[in-house]
Amino acid sequence: MYIDEPLKKYLDEAASGASTPGGGSVAALAGALGAALTSMVCNFTVGKKKYKDVEAEVSQILSEAEELRAKLLDLMVADTQVYGKVSTAYGMPKDTAEEKEARSAAIQDALKAAMGAPLETAICCHKIMKINEPLLEKGNTNLISDVGVAILLAESAMRSAIMNVEINLSFIKDEALCSETRDKLRPLMAEATELRSKIYKKVNEAIGAELGA
Amino acid sequence: MYIDEPLKKYLDEAASGASTPGGGSVAALAGALGAALTSMVCNFTVGKKKYKDVEAEVSQILSEAEELRAKLLDLMVADTQVYGKVSTAYGMPKDTAEEKEARSAAIQDALKAAMGAPLETAICCHKIMKINEPLLEKGNTNLISDVGVAILLAESAMRSAIMNVEINLSFIKDEALCSETRDKLRPLMAEATELRSKIYKKVNEAIGAELGA
Repeated sequence: MYIDEPLKKYLDEAASGASTPGGGSVAALAGALGAALTSMVCNFTVGKKKYKDVEAEVSQILSEAEELRAKLLDLMVADTQVYGKVSTAYGMPKDTAEEKEARSAAIQDALKAAMGAPLETAICCHKIMKINEPLLEKGNTNLISDVGVAILLAESAMRSAIMNVEINLSFIKDEALCSETRDKLRPLMAEATELRSKIYKKVNEAIGAELGA
Repeated sequence: MYIDEPLKKYLDEAASGASTPGGGSVAALAGALGAALTSMVCNFTVGKKKYKDVEAEVSQILSEAEELRAKLLDLMVADTQVYGKVSTAYGMPKDTAEEKEARSAAIQDALKAAMGAPLETAICCHKIMKINEPLLEKGNTNLISDVGVAILLAESAMRSAIMNVEINLSFIKDEALCSETRDKLRPLMAEATELRSKIYKKVNEAIGAELGA
């Protein structure tokens, strides 16, 4: 679903008046694009004589980037599927007290499940930023702007995913789960801000950019 | 090319050791994703009784978003094509003085043409940010986080495209063209920083997010 279908179809459905794919799914795809560029930088580094000394480390980064790309494409699809379950739960009957209770429990379960996809997306995007940091020094210098694009997309995809986590949290009544989830994401967010600003600046300096440096 | 092909194919080729699609093309696609979410917000607003008063304005935003999405998908492809022309020019013979001169002229022409795609991408992404600003107040409030995702993606796609413009500028010898291009982009960049920060903050406040607000 979506992955093997025309690129245009995904965009048409995202743009349409259907509820999926929405921002959570699109965030996962944007993260996958960041992972793809990370892999490209690695693929232009591994096997080149000039970068022999860093080959082992860059090969390791390549395999992590490829794993993250596959995971994010799965999350792009998963996000559209879990979203449907929340709608289904909201549609349950609520005439009797028992029905109300069953509906409310189903909604809470669906919301917790639905939160899983953007939460995983955010964690994957943070990892993409982390693995790009060493590529600044060790990746093929001709592709340094692609490190910059990867960082920019991963950071905005991470923030986008976190907004989608927050929307689920605002309806989840389990306070312990809410604060546990936010505690997990808070340090990722702080680090992402720092990484984006640092790497973006270094890339712009490296390419001699007057804008953005 | 790419648009009607499987989504996975585009990502596989971006990740590969082939030079296209690269960061410029990916930036255009990320911008198109931002445009798609903008359209989705409009499609959930237009035709709804609650939003009757803003229907005309939101319909106008929808048609702009759809135009930008189509343009950005074309730029996603165009960027991969112009890039090839630069490589071809660099591959021209340079044995005689005449050949050197012809090669150098061909490289300059190809670079100027290649700069066109990311320059257009940056301008389109800036427009996506601009049309999202009124959607904060006028779009369907249930989709306010999608306005946030659209803004985050458009801003990072714009910065990504501008890095690709800068790379071309660093090889272009026509100083007047270089400063004219930078003068065109400088105000867009300043405005984008402001819009991202303002809209992202408002979206997080609206969804009651503890992270990001």
